[in-house]
Amino acid sequence: MKNKTIIFEKRPEGKPEQECFRIEENLVPEIQNGEVLLKTKYVSVDPYLRGRMSDRKSYTSGFNLGEPMQSGIIAEVIESKNPDFRKGDFVSGLLNWAEHQVSNGEGLTKVDADAAPLSAYLGLLGMPGLTAYLGLMEIGQPKKGETLVVSGAAGAVGSVVGQIGKIVGCRVVGIAGSDEKTELLKTEFGFDEAVNYKTTPNMRKAIAKACPDGVDVYFDNVGGEISDGVMLNINKFARTTICGAISQYNETRMTTGPRLQSVLLVNSALMKGFIVHDYAEKFPEAIKQLSQWYGEGKLKLKETVVEGFENIPEAFIGLFEGENIGKMIVKI
Amino acid sequence: MKNKTIIFEKRPEGKPEQECFRIEENLVPEIQNGEVLLKTKYVSVDPYLRGRMSDRKSYTSGFNLGEPMQSGIIAEVIESKNPDFRKGDFVSGLLNWAEHQVSNGEGLTKVDADAAPLSAYLGLLGMPGLTAYLGLMEIGQPKKGETLVVSGAAGAVGSVVGQIGKIVGCRVVGIAGSDEKTELLKTEFGFDEAVNYKTTPNMRKAIAKACPDGVDVYFDNVGGEISDGVMLNINKFARTTICGAISQYNETRMTTGPRLQSVLLVNSALMKGFIVHDYAEKFPEAIKQLSQWYGEGKLKLKETVVEGFENIPEAFIGLFEGENIGKMIVKI
Repeated sequence: MKNKTIIFEKRPEGKPEQECFRIEENLVPEIQNGEVLLKTKYVSVDPYLRGRMSDRKSYTSGFNLGEPMQSGIIAEVIESKNPDFRKGDFVSGLLNWAEHQVSNGEGLTKVDADAAPLSAYLGLLGMPGLTAYLGLMEIGQPKKGETLVVSGAAGAVGSVVGQIGKIVGCRVVGIAGSDEKTELLKTEFGFDEAVNYKTTPNMRKAIAKACPDGVDVYFDNVGGEISDGVMLNINKFARTTICGAISQYNETRMTTGPRLQSVLLVNSALMKGFIVHDYAEKFPEAIKQLSQWYGEGKLKLKETVVEGFENIPEAFIGLFEGENIGKMIVKI
Repeated sequence: MKNKTIIFEKRPEGKPEQECFRIEENLVPEIQNGEVLLKTKYVSVDPYLRGRMSDRKSYTSGFNLGEPMQSGIIAEVIESKNPDFRKGDFVSGLLNWAEHQVSNGEGLTKVDADAAPLSAYLGLLGMPGLTAYLGLMEIGQPKKGETLVVSGAAGAVGSVVGQIGKIVGCRVVGIAGSDEKTELLKTEFGFDEAVNYKTTPNMRKAIAKACPDGVDVYFDNVGGEISDGVMLNINKFARTTICGAISQYNETRMTTGPRLQSVLLVNSALMKGFIVHDYAEKFPEAIKQLSQWYGEGKLKLKETVVEGFENIPEAFIGLFEGENIGKMIVKI
């Protein structure tokens, strides 16, 4: 049986393009004792993968040219010679972009197809959900009545951050890149206010207007000028979670902006980089809380689903065009 | 008896100048019941006063034009109608730049002229010492074997930060603005390495060279390009105390530099503004520790002393020229 794998072919300069990837065709591998054969069902494409494609220092190890691309994947066990897994089990793990692959079971987690849609384990109940919950709670530490601003608010992480902010009792303001998205933030996710940065000439003023009491917590997924505008509105003792900087990932050199040290100083404010893997010991409690809120209907699942294995690169590239609302998923 | 007071006459644009101040001559005031008459002995001049002279938002309230300038002062009680103070007592407090002044005793703290030189209560055992100790311990949290970088290292705060870093067991690298200062950091204060930023074309490279294991803790008194260079060398889980930004105080608008969010993100690093008044409940324990170290000879007192009441403004202006080594004090 034929089996396709997507190979990391060329490092992007600036924005990733189709030519960075190559599809390789082989045969579906045989499994040995202790192994399982996996059939890919859902593939997660995430902005952080851009960092792994460059040879700059990042918070995860880089991809090697000529080897398969990897990301979070939900797969079905279609054959097992490993006592821990049975045919028909669904698992999540950091896996290759391949239609089929062999695993010895290491790093695989069984997921419950009855508790939530399978793809939820790549979003709300997966890394993006953990990132939203832990990044907000551990660094942002939002309190009832405070103002929370979220950039990249319509994305996989941002949309969950905003909803958790509402559960905690914050006034929540989202920043996103289209009127469709800002509308959805308010109608679907319960944000109090939303700003379309693409039609906003002055982010500083727009945030000041959307946040009459200033900004207490900023959950930053984007960096760049948007964040400059938010940071110039922070309150005394404000906390900023730097979770991502998607506006910067495709820059070939560091960009410049207002130096924020004086703003942090005057406000006794904190800014901290957040990498979800640093908080691994808190994953179980976080997943428990997210699952409970999801079960109670307090957290909504929102996905942009692209279909077809060959379209994984396109879906990934689309992240940088803001084409997704909620989690970007590829269904195989 | 004639009495001179220095009045805040004109807000500075950029660097403060003599014309921002005016000397007023009156008579030494009479005291009423409950009051004391104070004779000023030592006046502290500090970079943060620049913030109080502008009408921009700062972390302390601004000075009003036409009113006396204020700062930390050591004074002698020369007459008392307040049962808490006796003639001959020495006190510290936030007082007017006046040769003599009346106080009801509020905000005055008696200081022990036998335990340390009087001026030490404006430096090592005063606000700068508290700032160094608490800013370093509470935010920087230095650990044995880590690398600590201090900017403004020869100043009142920086010179104490570096010495505490050595007590804790860090490799300590100081940044200062003359060869005389960098030499002193190493010979007098025990710094492992020192960088003269005025003769260093590339701070990033200079810090990389001085810190072969990277920067774990950065105590920042200066901001600007110096800090850009340090921040580009931070390690995973680095902590930056933003204590001051003297390079920026005289700027009339925010300066720009590399956006540091990506650096913080990749390193899970923290940056936090530090204002000593936020930590008031920890002052007693901090003073106790500083006094103990001073008594044990582990902390050295270093001052630049200017003499004469009329020279207070000049001493203050000199701070921005880097004219001081250790605490800048005016002896009256």
